[in-house]
Amino acid sequence: MGTEFLKIMDHNDVKDIIKNIPIKRKTERIPLKEAHRRVLAEDIRAKIDLPPFNRVSRDGYAVKAEDTFRASEDKPAKLKCIEIILAGEVATKKVEKGTCIEVNTGAPTPEGADGVVMVEFTEKEGDNVYINKGATVGQHIAYKGSDIQKNDPLLNSGILLTHDKIGVLAAIGIGEVLVFKKPKVVIISTGNEIINYDEEMEYGKIYDINSQTIANAVKSCGCIPIYSGISKDDYNDIKNNIKEHLDADVIITSGGTSAGGGDVLKVVLDDIGEIFVHGIAVKPGKPTIVGIVKDKPIFGLPGYPAAALTVFHVFVAPFLRKMAFLDSHKKSDVLKLKISKRYHSSRGRHQFVLVKIEKGTAHPILKDSGAITAIAEADGYFEIPKNVEMIPEESEIEVILLESR
Amino acid sequence: MGTEFLKIMDHNDVKDIIKNIPIKRKTERIPLKEAHRRVLAEDIRAKIDLPPFNRVSRDGYAVKAEDTFRASEDKPAKLKCIEIILAGEVATKKVEKGTCIEVNTGAPTPEGADGVVMVEFTEKEGDNVYINKGATVGQHIAYKGSDIQKNDPLLNSGILLTHDKIGVLAAIGIGEVLVFKKPKVVIISTGNEIINYDEEMEYGKIYDINSQTIANAVKSCGCIPIYSGISKDDYNDIKNNIKEHLDADVIITSGGTSAGGGDVLKVVLDDIGEIFVHGIAVKPGKPTIVGIVKDKPIFGLPGYPAAALTVFHVFVAPFLRKMAFLDSHKKSDVLKLKISKRYHSSRGRHQFVLVKIEKGTAHPILKDSGAITAIAEADGYFEIPKNVEMIPEESEIEVILLESR
Repeated sequence: MGTEFLKIMDHNDVKDIIKNIPIKRKTERIPLKEAHRRVLAEDIRAKIDLPPFNRVSRDGYAVKAEDTFRASEDKPAKLKCIEIILAGEVATKKVEKGTCIEVNTGAPTPEGADGVVMVEFTEKEGDNVYINKGATVGQHIAYKGSDIQKNDPLLNSGILLTHDKIGVLAAIGIGEVLVFKKPKVVIISTGNEIINYDEEMEYGKIYDINSQTIANAVKSCGCIPIYSGISKDDYNDIKNNIKEHLDADVIITSGGTSAGGGDVLKVVLDDIGEIFVHGIAVKPGKPTIVGIVKDKPIFGLPGYPAAALTVFHVFVAPFLRKMAFLDSHKKSDVLKLKISKRYHSSRGRHQFVLVKIEKGTAHPILKDSGAITAIAEADGYFEIPKNVEMIPEESEIEVILLESR
Repeated sequence: MGTEFLKIMDHNDVKDIIKNIPIKRKTERIPLKEAHRRVLAEDIRAKIDLPPFNRVSRDGYAVKAEDTFRASEDKPAKLKCIEIILAGEVATKKVEKGTCIEVNTGAPTPEGADGVVMVEFTEKEGDNVYINKGATVGQHIAYKGSDIQKNDPLLNSGILLTHDKIGVLAAIGIGEVLVFKKPKVVIISTGNEIINYDEEMEYGKIYDINSQTIANAVKSCGCIPIYSGISKDDYNDIKNNIKEHLDADVIITSGGTSAGGGDVLKVVLDDIGEIFVHGIAVKPGKPTIVGIVKDKPIFGLPGYPAAALTVFHVFVAPFLRKMAFLDSHKKSDVLKLKISKRYHSSRGRHQFVLVKIEKGTAHPILKDSGAITAIAEADGYFEIPKNVEMIPEESEIEVILLESR
């Protein structure tokens, strides 16, 4: 009855094996409007100078600075205002000695002017403007290319296009960008007892949980989940489901990996693929499979929801994030918290413990990995090395959040 | 020339005014498959017991525990195996004294059995099974309703549906959920000099940046941005654009709020709405407008991209996140970092300073709020109270991330 584990492996060795799985990345060109939180796949250089012209940066009067050098409140300089231009307008006249042009922030600096006096330091009477404070050369003018020069490097391939970086691309008139394609990840739940939520509940059946949990976790890793439905614990059913989805980039199954009679995934992979890992010295998640079918990495997660979720976070998510060219670990998702009570660990296995965070304290969830309430309460998890048997009450632990709230 | 600010307000007073703007929330029922990162708008109680039946939690043999009480490796108990069932199957026979049924994890516990012996502690010879270790009553059986009982409260209205919580809903067979509708936020860029990225660049024009920056930042606040295009600095153009979009929940404009001749938003709001705030004692962001038009909150941001972005983050984002029923501040988005160099602040105004984070140190960006390179480099910002003039090198500051990376 049941199959043997190939060889129970240390979790760090498994991480190394997963790190060495070769990754192929594809790119696609998409409209900037759809690029939020995508990863840039090209180096972007400025297509234009910024500002694109000598730009007025304060509301006021464009002047020849030398006309105002000695101006003060007591002895204002008197200039003749020869034109009024607004932002978006271009002066038709030229600032000559003794004259000025009224300008607004954002307007091109009129020809002949080399400084701008803020409106606060002026008084206007008819066509005459009295300047109460001298302007230096270049004052309140943002010169063409002073912020960015055409062909300057601006953003590097590999950065995440957050809203601010999209603004930078918009600034130079970019309407489309090359980004990494989101990897497609097929989700297969296996088990004769698993039914879809829209099926009639029968005695002995349970609803499919892992498809939903894993598919949405996959989204958070920058990938696109593809629901493949539920496979029976049947050699042909699982094999066909996998073969049908080899156009995807990664395959994730759950269930059917324990050493029980229902374990057919291993047999399928022995036939059509290769198994790298079958059994990890962790709790939960011991009966995990890692392998490959025709160049497509496949992860066989345990069936119990909390175990599947934990294995996904620890071993699969970093791989998917790397494939999607996102950082494997976001620093902000790790919190240092005190543990609310003493926790005893299982000897000989590296352990992952789900916790609920309440008032800045981590409460370990003392439920087995079959319990749904464990997931209902969980905010994150912490790790206990295999040689540590007990975590004392109130000691500090590093909690990795399941998903940013 | 130019309009006067109504009254420059303290930034905390402005925050209070914004907090008191009444919020109307709508709800909608959506498929669970589309519910990732939506906010639950109903209390969920369990529709079924979990497990839904007495569930076997280990591969092995279902027994009458009393048959095995004295079993040991030296003196195994011998039982007759009368049936083999897999997960998803239901036993047709009943476990009687002296018999057992082979079961897999997830199977319903056969009638008559009150314990399960793990396969590891058994040996099978033909129909006979030798039990090497006694089972206690209830061993390896997850009883019906032991995890969750029908009608137990499970998830509360207001929680964010992360992937794990969606798994909880899937577990009880929920296919649709009531969630808060994402608020619709209209984005209007104003300015005669602003053009769309797909328009021909002309002398004196600049590309629209704020529409892209703000629209995507709005998404991160759990809202849906609606691009309204660019309005000229023209009373009717701005008024009509606002009036056309009063079916949205919030309106955000940028540009046209400074005390210059191009300032028409204030005049429009004086006519068709109400202004609560016009001018805030902050840097950047002084010429910000907060008001209301026919019950719809309107925020008038400055035109300079870095200023618009900062004001959005400080004043608008918390409001949008509250409207979307998300937390106004995610703790994990604040980092305590050392500042790389001394920073001098402007007296009399509460200041927000963009920083670049490199190797765990915050580098203040010393560029004015018109610079695009400031945004290209920025990872977050920190605050300097108005009565602080200098932040010493290497002192610790709290950096608020612009968007999680």
